[in-house]
Amino acid sequence: MTAKANAIVAQSGGPTTVINSSVCGVVAQAIKSGKIDRVLGAQNGILGALREELFDITAESPDKIEALKRTPAAAVGSCRYKLKSLDESRADYERILEVFRAHEIRYFFYVGGNDSMDTADKVNKLAADSGYELVCMGVPKTIDNDLAFTDHCPGYGSVAKYVATCAMEASKDTEALYTTDTCTILEVMGRNAGWIAAATGLARRQPQDGPHLIYLPETAFSLEKFVADARAVLKEFGCIFIVAGEGLRDKNGDYITADAGSFGRDSFGHQQLGGVAEMLKAVIEKEIGVKARFNKLGTNQRSAMHFASLTDIEEAYLCGSTAVTQALQGQNGQMVTLLREPGQNYRCTTGLAPLADVANGEKLVPREFINDSENGITQAMKDYVTPLVQGQAPVEIGPDGLPVFMRFDKKLINKKLPKYI
Amino acid sequence: MTAKANAIVAQSGGPTTVINSSVCGVVAQAIKSGKIDRVLGAQNGILGALREELFDITAESPDKIEALKRTPAAAVGSCRYKLKSLDESRADYERILEVFRAHEIRYFFYVGGNDSMDTADKVNKLAADSGYELVCMGVPKTIDNDLAFTDHCPGYGSVAKYVATCAMEASKDTEALYTTDTCTILEVMGRNAGWIAAATGLARRQPQDGPHLIYLPETAFSLEKFVADARAVLKEFGCIFIVAGEGLRDKNGDYITADAGSFGRDSFGHQQLGGVAEMLKAVIEKEIGVKARFNKLGTNQRSAMHFASLTDIEEAYLCGSTAVTQALQGQNGQMVTLLREPGQNYRCTTGLAPLADVANGEKLVPREFINDSENGITQAMKDYVTPLVQGQAPVEIGPDGLPVFMRFDKKLINKKLPKYI
Repeated sequence: MTAKANAIVAQSGGPTTVINSSVCGVVAQAIKSGKIDRVLGAQNGILGALREELFDITAESPDKIEALKRTPAAAVGSCRYKLKSLDESRADYERILEVFRAHEIRYFFYVGGNDSMDTADKVNKLAADSGYELVCMGVPKTIDNDLAFTDHCPGYGSVAKYVATCAMEASKDTEALYTTDTCTILEVMGRNAGWIAAATGLARRQPQDGPHLIYLPETAFSLEKFVADARAVLKEFGCIFIVAGEGLRDKNGDYITADAGSFGRDSFGHQQLGGVAEMLKAVIEKEIGVKARFNKLGTNQRSAMHFASLTDIEEAYLCGSTAVTQALQGQNGQMVTLLREPGQNYRCTTGLAPLADVANGEKLVPREFINDSENGITQAMKDYVTPLVQGQAPVEIGPDGLPVFMRFDKKLINKKLPKYI
Repeated sequence: MTAKANAIVAQSGGPTTVINSSVCGVVAQAIKSGKIDRVLGAQNGILGALREELFDITAESPDKIEALKRTPAAAVGSCRYKLKSLDESRADYERILEVFRAHEIRYFFYVGGNDSMDTADKVNKLAADSGYELVCMGVPKTIDNDLAFTDHCPGYGSVAKYVATCAMEASKDTEALYTTDTCTILEVMGRNAGWIAAATGLARRQPQDGPHLIYLPETAFSLEKFVADARAVLKEFGCIFIVAGEGLRDKNGDYITADAGSFGRDSFGHQQLGGVAEMLKAVIEKEIGVKARFNKLGTNQRSAMHFASLTDIEEAYLCGSTAVTQALQGQNGQMVTLLREPGQNYRCTTGLAPLADVANGEKLVPREFINDSENGITQAMKDYVTPLVQGQAPVEIGPDGLPVFMRFDKKLINKKLPKYI
């Protein structure tokens, strides 16, 4: 490898509370190593590479780089631009390499999920085929916690802590006002994997505590069973607090919001649009006859820096810094993984998994983490997630009493190539 | 007044993060005074009084009473049971007095909003007419901040802090992913008063920061103007972050979700149900052609103890303890108010306002707190709300890494009267 070379870091897909901590780890370790000249940021993920919209993160103030650890979302910018196979999207991949060449980029750190690992892997292969010396390393990121080969993903611990706390708090509200607003449904993210919904089970320390019912996309959802479950909870506790993963599907694999039959139709027979929670609220009101509410945390669950998990922040940073260390030690085409060491006390180290393997894998909530009735979690799930939510990440509070976040100056460096997209 | 007498405390309506702090203030001050024998809790608000479902709060453990300050929702229990005029609901009022008599209750502390103050006032008048010695004092509570005669309401500072932080965080998410998820709409509570929506304006420290647009129920909402506003923001900032109060109404005073014309219909021409944010999301997608998301915090905004305002908690406690102090000093038929002292530095003292006056008043966001374009707030609004969000209330964290809340044992005392409802 060239004695001194530039690196590029890009963020991709849905932001998380801690993805910026991973970028901080990459940048800080790159500076510390003395072996990387500049770390460029690809503005808005792979789009920045394609459009040659790059800025020098190492030229940003040290305060801003440090403040990445306390700032949610994606400070470098993100996108959902999907690259397909090398054949189908060849021009894109070649353009990326062309931009890398033009800016003497020899290290590519991609912080993202499956798709990002797939992109990084393909860029890496094309570089090798073209004889361009390039190291591509993946840094895991997803609130969905669905990446294979890693015990868990940075981003998950914070969303788990936040949604569990929100479930606990809103449950207290339902318990207090059960005489009128008897049922509350909390909708959380997770289209295929129910890790986020499952984490809310931490809030239920006592049987009386909510959530009384948790539904995950991993198990087939039945509206009839749902109504029976809710009736039983109402009888036992006098109120019902339900958590629904956004991607609930019936036994045929169809999203229940897409065709909910007579349950999901309003009084005029129109199919109700909207999310799962809204639909289930209507079902509860119609079938059980008690008033129901729904809360949909939406993007607030993945940006709740004000109550982030310190463990998560630290591990996200570790994944970023380890990607650099490993790259400089000669690794290539790997994603950093988190390994839970055996033993009573939680201890997490890092490992590596080939980008291509990660790209093709998916990790759903295992059956043994879901209860027999498929409407809650087991102690094994609690044991898995509890260590990940530990610790309160520092929050910088401004004179106005609210958190202070950073924003990069993002002075774009001069383009050297013709416009592409 | 009898040398020693019992007091009753009741909570009413929608819970808040700090209503339990007010109860803590009542109970602690009652114990401290040595002039009140027992403080009974009316289980589930006025329903508990009507049903003679009472428990002795002073018999609960001191730890639990102290933990009220760290527990959201309504630990005594709440309800939405509405008492009408003395003529219309006479039997109810008489029953309440009968229960008070049976349990030697001479002090009634009612923590609630307008309706609760109305109820307390009428109970008080009936007691006077019946020659039953009773002191009725109101303790203000509402996240909506719409009570007259008080500078602000306990509960508001915490919801303001939380929704402003959520707006700030979700704005960062929108800014990061604007290339695909270009618009986010955050729906907050406030059916008649826009105080909560207005508070999110604190998040906008720089023009680029969200929320770029804030709509309050105080001003007539026009879908055409809304679309024009959103287009202008998109042009200037590349993304759009919008806050909508749940009770937006058009120039005729009709809720915009009730009949949104062609805007509010889906592609099949069906009228969309659901909340304001969901409707506005559909409008943005249809009229501007960018992808929009919506977050609906729901009851999570009024129960977010994990990020409550210390100022709010302390003032809530102060209102509770002051109600007791004033009652023992001979005041009756009054609600405790919060008075903002003149001067540069925020300082808050307490006052009193007659229950009947509070019952009939309502305080909306004044015109000078809303910008000329009626899509944001002014510096005056920021100046008003900033002191109320200051300080982080202590959060007790359990071994599982999550907040710990209390639950009363609620051992109901023996009934002395026949069943009523």
